[in-house]
Amino acid sequence: MSERFEGELQVAGCRLAVAQAGIRYRNRSDLCLIELAENSSVAAVFTRNRFCAAPVLVAREHLAHKAIRYLLINSGNANAGTGDQGMQRARETCQLVAAAAGVKAEQVLPFSTGVIGEPLPVDPFVRAVPDLVARLSPTAWPEAARAIMTTDTRPKLASRQLVLEGHTVNLVGIAKGAGMIHPNMATMLGYIVCDAPVAQPLVDSWNAELADLSFNCVTVDGDTSTNDSCVLACTGAISVDLVASESDPRAVVLKEQLRSLYLELAHALVRDGEGATKFVTIRVGGGQSYEECRRVAFSVAHSPLVKTALYASDPNWGRILAAIGNAGIEDLDTQSVSINLDETALVRAGQRAADYTEEQGQAVFSKAEFCIDIDLGRGPEEATVWTSDLSHEYVTINAEYRS
Amino acid sequence: MSERFEGELQVAGCRLAVAQAGIRYRNRSDLCLIELAENSSVAAVFTRNRFCAAPVLVAREHLAHKAIRYLLINSGNANAGTGDQGMQRARETCQLVAAAAGVKAEQVLPFSTGVIGEPLPVDPFVRAVPDLVARLSPTAWPEAARAIMTTDTRPKLASRQLVLEGHTVNLVGIAKGAGMIHPNMATMLGYIVCDAPVAQPLVDSWNAELADLSFNCVTVDGDTSTNDSCVLACTGAISVDLVASESDPRAVVLKEQLRSLYLELAHALVRDGEGATKFVTIRVGGGQSYEECRRVAFSVAHSPLVKTALYASDPNWGRILAAIGNAGIEDLDTQSVSINLDETALVRAGQRAADYTEEQGQAVFSKAEFCIDIDLGRGPEEATVWTSDLSHEYVTINAEYRS
Repeated sequence: MSERFEGELQVAGCRLAVAQAGIRYRNRSDLCLIELAENSSVAAVFTRNRFCAAPVLVAREHLAHKAIRYLLINSGNANAGTGDQGMQRARETCQLVAAAAGVKAEQVLPFSTGVIGEPLPVDPFVRAVPDLVARLSPTAWPEAARAIMTTDTRPKLASRQLVLEGHTVNLVGIAKGAGMIHPNMATMLGYIVCDAPVAQPLVDSWNAELADLSFNCVTVDGDTSTNDSCVLACTGAISVDLVASESDPRAVVLKEQLRSLYLELAHALVRDGEGATKFVTIRVGGGQSYEECRRVAFSVAHSPLVKTALYASDPNWGRILAAIGNAGIEDLDTQSVSINLDETALVRAGQRAADYTEEQGQAVFSKAEFCIDIDLGRGPEEATVWTSDLSHEYVTINAEYRS
Repeated sequence: MSERFEGELQVAGCRLAVAQAGIRYRNRSDLCLIELAENSSVAAVFTRNRFCAAPVLVAREHLAHKAIRYLLINSGNANAGTGDQGMQRARETCQLVAAAAGVKAEQVLPFSTGVIGEPLPVDPFVRAVPDLVARLSPTAWPEAARAIMTTDTRPKLASRQLVLEGHTVNLVGIAKGAGMIHPNMATMLGYIVCDAPVAQPLVDSWNAELADLSFNCVTVDGDTSTNDSCVLACTGAISVDLVASESDPRAVVLKEQLRSLYLELAHALVRDGEGATKFVTIRVGGGQSYEECRRVAFSVAHSPLVKTALYASDPNWGRILAAIGNAGIEDLDTQSVSINLDETALVRAGQRAADYTEEQGQAVFSKAEFCIDIDLGRGPEEATVWTSDLSHEYVTINAEYRS
């Protein structure tokens, strides 16, 4: 059913263009415009950071008007911590697109990523936007993936195809940055576009749910940026009937492909996390609720002691135990907790498994990818998060960036 | 009123002894016994980690019986994640003290710090305890401070004297380790002894309140160990009247000295935190509740991005802003937030202060000690926490300890 694209990536009803606007960077593209066909269903979720950036506030406002036609994304400047002037400038960038493309400013969503607290220069937008509109092309996905990068070491681009009613449906997504990876170079951004027609309420709920299960389940350093945003747009440009409800069998198939695409992008963020040398899955089962499983998983994933042990390939399991006990589940019975490292039994009934050996643990921790599988032994729910390690390189990147 | 001790530290009604029991370390003391006079008021608070160690469980049980006479503290082995056998062994160590000293096992509180998940060897206790009881001395405080160390680079010992009703009252405290500083070498332990007679309910409430304002307000890496414990004992061995209630003017004076002693010990833990090069006070005022101020302060103190900026002496204020926004205060109005770096105005009304310069920020961040002073602008409450930076040395210590 699903396969990667052969040849050039395209989503019907979607065109893109990028420019070297010179907002901060030199000799690289830093501005991207995505055009969506009329009547596209567009949904977005944003950072929960209270210091959210001006473009996040403006995008939220514009989303309420619906009929979104353009996504304008700049890198190099986050337009965050910039007050009323920042709001004004975010609006101006939307007006520039509106004027050049013949739509209303409310039909444009602005996104920014980069340095926090610096005024966003508008001149680069004035110069670049008309040309961007003129150069929109259906095949500029790889260029778009590069234009939105800040400190990412490689672009993140993923795609799927499936067939509905004999028509090929295309899904393409791009993303950048994992959590607040970099000093003043914040932000996770994700843009997923699909050419099937999907009802707005479904697009809203899918984007919220899938972002939560993917981008909100990965962590590099536990920080949440001021600019995080994830957009799902369904252009409806291919001629199949509207996917209107979850109960439609086509919805199940389409959502599964979207889910897999969101996860691929989210995992790519972790793999490209600052200084990351490991990709570790933390699965917590046996919980009374999804929420408590997730809390335990993040407690383990965020523990600097666990993360340095991952870096050292040291199966220092006392740290995992302590992080579980630290997750704030007041009535957790530690004697019912089990832990596996991949297939190796590490902890049973809250203590070291009888036949566990340091060599077994060492063998798993030495792998570039493995799973810490925790069972709380108190219910049927589970949650999974993905994380990287805490390396010297992380400290170097984050301590020495501006020096 | 208060002054440091001249000469040898002593608290009437308290004797101590240490031994090289060989639990894990060689050629250093690793076992400490503290004797408290009959009718001492003894209070303890323990880790909130659900995977609390066997000695914590046993100590909690014994505390319920009151009439505590001995504190037995070993380093080198945490007796955590050790199941029923661990419980049995913690009880055995209490029985050894009880037999040698002629008290009940329930009158002994056991404490352990060191490697998690390894069986606690009892033989070293069998060999050392009778001799410990025989060698108890009122002046062994410095030796005790050393015996309880694990990866601490220096002992933590603080003292105060004050005069009540013409009698000198002595306060001495020792502590070790800041949070879960070290791989498998967990634990904050604190023991504060005073020779004034103080009613049990007051000792209970003071210890809980003062530990919360001191040890629970310092953080090195945000991890909470399986063994954290803080004990306050008032021996009542000097002949002044019982301090029975908060409204007694003597209670105010005594509590203030205790508060200052708890803080001195807690700060010493941060200063000796793993790889710490900075000592930073994070004060949050203008909150609607103490709790929300504390949450914001810890959000800043725990942010790896803030901590690496501290290490780099880089006034990367966007990271502070993001950490405040990330603290989970849903209705925070970011436009009412102000930040000072010591006396320098950094943020006003949620954005960079008009006259702030990078040079000013750099000057403060270059200091070994400074204060990040945040005002939420929404209420009268405040909270203060103390933290260190995240350095290469931290990663080295925690990643390479077992390799």
